This record gives sequence, C-alpha cells and structure tokens, in this order.
Amino acid sequence: MNTLRTVTLANGKQSTILLADDLKDLSSHLGNYGRSVLWVFDTNTAKLFKQLPPVHVVLESGESSKNFVSLERILFAAMDEGLGRDGRIIGFGGGVVCDMAAFAASVYMRGCHLTLVPTTLLCMVDASVGGKAAIDFRGLKNMVGSFYPADEILISFDTLRTLSEKEFLNGLAEVIKHALLSQDEELYKLLLTKKNEILARDSETLQRLLDLSLAVKIWYIEQDPTETLGIRQMLNLGHTFGHALESSSHFGLFGHGSCVAWGTGRALEAGVSLGVTEKAYASGATKLFKSYGYNMDYRIGRGDWIDFREHLSKDKKKEAGKVLFVLLEGQGKAILKPLEIQTVQHLVIAKPIF
Amino acid sequence: MNTLRTVTLANGKQSTILLADDLKDLSSHLGNYGRSVLWVFDTNTAKLFKQLPPVHVVLESGESSKNFVSLERILFAAMDEGLGRDGRIIGFGGGVVCDMAAFAASVYMRGCHLTLVPTTLLCMVDASVGGKAAIDFRGLKNMVGSFYPADEILISFDTLRTLSEKEFLNGLAEVIKHALLSQDEELYKLLLTKKNEILARDSETLQRLLDLSLAVKIWYIEQDPTETLGIRQMLNLGHTFGHALESSSHFGLFGHGSCVAWGTGRALEAGVSLGVTEKAYASGATKLFKSYGYNMDYRIGRGDWIDFREHLSKDKKKEAGKVLFVLLEGQGKAILKPLEIQTVQHLVIAKPIF
Repeated sequence: MNTLRTVTLANGKQSTILLADDLKDLSSHLGNYGRSVLWVFDTNTAKLFKQLPPVHVVLESGESSKNFVSLERILFAAMDEGLGRDGRIIGFGGGVVCDMAAFAASVYMRGCHLTLVPTTLLCMVDASVGGKAAIDFRGLKNMVGSFYPADEILISFDTLRTLSEKEFLNGLAEVIKHALLSQDEELYKLLLTKKNEILARDSETLQRLLDLSLAVKIWYIEQDPTETLGIRQMLNLGHTFGHALESSSHFGLFGHGSCVAWGTGRALEAGVSLGVTEKAYASGATKLFKSYGYNMDYRIGRGDWIDFREHLSKDKKKEAGKVLFVLLEGQGKAILKPLEIQTVQHLVIAKPIF
Repeated sequence: MNTLRTVTLANGKQSTILLADDLKDLSSHLGNYGRSVLWVFDTNTAKLFKQLPPVHVVLESGESSKNFVSLERILFAAMDEGLGRDGRIIGFGGGVVCDMAAFAASVYMRGCHLTLVPTTLLCMVDASVGGKAAIDFRGLKNMVGSFYPADEILISFDTLRTLSEKEFLNGLAEVIKHALLSQDEELYKLLLTKKNEILARDSETLQRLLDLSLAVKIWYIEQDPTETLGIRQMLNLGHTFGHALESSSHFGLFGHGSCVAWGTGRALEAGVSLGVTEKAYASGATKLFKSYGYNMDYRIGRGDWIDFREHLSKDKKKEAGKVLFVLLEGQGKAILKPLEIQTVQHLVIAKPIF
C-alpha cells in the first residue's frame, strides 16, 4: 500500500489516495478497521466477495440508486449497527456507490469517517476525489448533496483490469478532459502517444495516467474546495452540455463519459464560434477524443430540444438566473460564460463544424 | 437593524446576528432579497403574515416535521422555483423550522444562501446559531444532519413578547445552561438578580441576557466549529440525559427546555457522586433552575428504564462504543466522561440527593 497523493480540502481536511498492490493488500488494510464499520456495495461489486463483511448495504447497481431511498437505507443500517461518529462507512464501487456512501457519511450524526474504494476508472479519477457527494432528485442529476472529502481513497489496479471496454472509456473521457484543463501538456502528450498502451491497460502507463489526471483535479480543487471561487467549476468542462444530454436521455442511453466527451466537444465549438477558443486547438482536442472512439458528431433530434433545454436550465452553475458554461481559451485556460440559448440550440442540433 | 454579534465558523464562514427594531424593520431587510428566495414557515409562524411571500413551504408545527419528508418538500419547492446556488432559503420560526431550512440549504445544490429568523428564545440562543442542522430519524433526535452556518440570523424582540410562558421557559433553560458553562459569572449573576425582569420580559434585560448567552455559545463553537476537538461538545451539558428523556417520552410530553434543565440536574448529581463537582456548586445551580420553575426532582418510572437506556445508548457523543456525558468541575469547567450504566440508572430512577 503506497501513498499516491494527498489532497487538502475544506476545513483543512486531508484525503489520502493510496495505491494497493492488489485486492489482497486492499483487504488487509481495510480489515484493520475491525468493528464499527458499515460497507456499501452495489449488486456488481458485492459479487467480488466470496463472503460479504458482516455489516453491509448492497444497492441496486446504476444511477437510479442515487436517491433518498438508498440514503435512508444506509443511514438506517448504520444506526441499526449502533455506529458512532467515530464509526466508518466504506464505499466499495463506482461513482454511485461512492457518492451514496459519501453523502450518507456526511450527514450521519453530521459526519462520520469515510473510506472510498473506487472500482471504476471514472470514479478513481473523478467522483472519489474532491469530496463532492450528491444524489439525483426529481429527475435531475446531483441536485442534492454535500462537500465531504473521504479520509482515504484506496485504489487497486486489479479492479481496473476487469472493467468492460465501455466502462473503461467512461472514465477515460474525464482523463482527456483533465488533459485539456492541465497547466502543462504532459497528460495530453501521454494520451496522444500511448494510446495503445492505455487501451491495453498496461499497468505502468495507467499508473502514470492516473497520477497525472489526479494532479490536474487536485490543482483545481485545492484552490477552491467548495466551488465558491469560480476555480473548481472549471472541472465541469463538458458537463453542462453533457449532463443535459444524460438527463434528457434518462440517465443511461449514453454513459457519463460519452456525454462528457460530447459536451466538451460542444464547449469547444461554442468557444470557437464566440472567438474564445482557437480553431486549431478545438480541432486537435476533438480529434483526440475521436481517436479513443467517442462520438463527437452526435446531435440531438429537433423533437428532443425542449426537453434538453429544460434540463440545461436546471444546471447548478447559474448566476443571476443564467446558466454558465465552461469554455477554453486554450490549454489549461478555462473561463465561465453564459451562452445565448440560440447558440446552444445551434450547437446541439446543427451539423458539426469540424 | 443593528449587528449584535459576528461568529466565525467552519471554513471561515461568518454568521452575522442582527437585531431588528421590530417586525417592520425585519420585513424591510428581508424584502431586499427580492426574487430567488424560498421561505420556510410552520403552521404557527405562517399566521404572523397577512399575506405569505410568493414562494414558501409551510411545515406542520412540531418536532414530528423534522424528517426526510419535510426536507424533500423544501428541496422540491426550491427546484420548482428554479432557485440557483446563489438563491436563498429563509427559515422563519423556531428550532424545527430553522433546522429544516438550514439542512435543506446545506444540501440544495450542495449549499445555497441561508437566512434564519428565530422566533423562539430557544432558537435565538441555541438552534439558529452555530450551524448545526439536523432531522430526527427512526425515532431518534438529530441523528442525520450537517454543519451549515446561516449567513445571517435576524432577531426581533417583538416575537419574544408573544411567546407562551412554557415556550419562553423552554429557551431559558439553555440560557441557564450557558450561565454554568460561561468563563465568567456575569450571566449567572444576571439570572440570580434579575429574575423578575427576565420573567416579565423587560426588553433591556432580555437583550443583555441574549447577548451574554450568545457570547458563551460563540466562545465554544468558534474554537471547535465541527465538534471534533471535544470543546463544542461541552454545550451538550444536560443533553444526553435530556434527549433520552425527550426521546423516550416521544418528543413532547416534556419540552426541550425542561428536559435540558432536568438533564443538567442529573449531570450535576453525577459529578457530585463521582467527586468531580463540588456539592455546593451543584446545589446552587439546581436551585437556580428551580427558582425559574423547572422540575428538577422528576424521576422516570422503573418501567420506563429500558426504553430510556435504549435511547441513551444511541447518543452521538460516543467513544469506543461508550456514551460520554458532560460533567462540570465548576463554573465554566466542563469535562467529558463515560458513566457506568448503574450510576445512570441510580440517577434517573432514585430519589433526588439535593
């Protein structure tokens, strides 16, 4: 078990990101906590254990579990076990499990200990790090939640190797997004030059990829842990468009990663059309996404526009009632800007311009 | 509108406590927020308005509204109105309304603006200040919640004068508790020497009482905003015994204040029996409570002990599975100590020792 990175967040609270040699190493670390521990799995990750730990909750896998019902189930199990504030909730799974475990830990007795074991690439590079926890509410993504960094995040590459291609690409979209937001070009270059190794999930390359991707996320979140300074919000590049697509297609027709990739494409196009983004940069970044197989040319049907716009209007990045979009001036230079609704409509329905 | 005190809490977030000349002054201050505001009332405080503000939620008055259903009602109303993160929830009422408004504001889009207008003495001196918000869960008080200080707390004495005697005494118990926890004797002396003025709710005396009481609370919470250093917990003097009584009598047979007064009496007795508290100090403090009409001699029936013990065991102040009690070594000197269950049983069932 090695420390990969340490993150300092709200209230000076530290999250340690640890890299386990393998699942056995991981289990022995978690075994040390003994009692006063509640595990949260989903129906997929529960299968990884021959015998589940004595106190656990197994959520139905999938986005539809990110709701108040799951929250209450976890809280009730914690209470039933008599967990104190010094007790620990361990989330073992992807983004849904980690979000639910973290949100529950943040409100159980106003906060208990939290360990996250992300089992997907998406969760390793994004959801598990940075303390954002949320549930979907009345059909809208992440509307209700809190900031609550995990004490520790445990990563084992064993789990990464068992992911489906689709699930792996789901996470890789966030890595590419981080590459565009990075203050240097190292991650971008790694993605350009080591595509085969990455897709073959070569351990050494993945560790480098993970580390560089985390470094970008940490750079933004340490400066603005609770997203109040307009810095952390830049990590939402591609997410305003992406979430609206995800929500209007009822969470699932497209994976989160595909939506983020697509949304980043729209943000790049928006930047170009407003003269904010250089056309060559936007075109290069779009090509990078495409080289990993993301569908950047997808456009929503005219009949879906009303629904899409409705979801867009519920975005959390608002100022004076106007939704703000993250645009890129260039590598690592993000800005927040409201877009005219006609511009958005043109971008998501019209033909691609690259 | 005058600033009474300013509190700096978690993340350096400041709460300003403002004193309004009267209800009109209060309304004109709140009127400035214009749109993007959601008001939370209960069935009692809603009656204070001839016409309710356009966007509002009215909760059923009473502790039974401190639940997930009320939380979801507020969140849904906020969403329905299209409130952004820069929107504001205003809680107008007692502890239940302020707790619900604060918990909702803390999780709505991971945090929006929050104004509290406490309308009871209890809420003015306690619930509204310090950022603790919570709901009851599965029959246990404040099991689920968060730390989320209000941006501002608006107090108008007009409301205090309309409170019932019972409701006024409900808050005064916390004031007396603060007097025992204070680093000086000013509040204690005020309570001893100005009983008639206090009970007659003389404005000048009440303002002094409120200010001194807030000063004590602020002294503890500023040092330990999220109750992790064993300092803020001292404010729970009387609450471990008191909450168990309140819970086992199903939230309502006794008011919160009566329970806290009674619980503080039990904590003083516990201290005396362990040689922690001087008998003369305990006796004096008990007399002070009695002089304001609190029943300090009440003991639970033998048949209620199992239920009481069960509720006690769910207290949040636990270490290694043992419930910790706040005891007093003397004026302003609180300590945390586990008690043997036999000691507790003896204290809550046996005859009074003072």
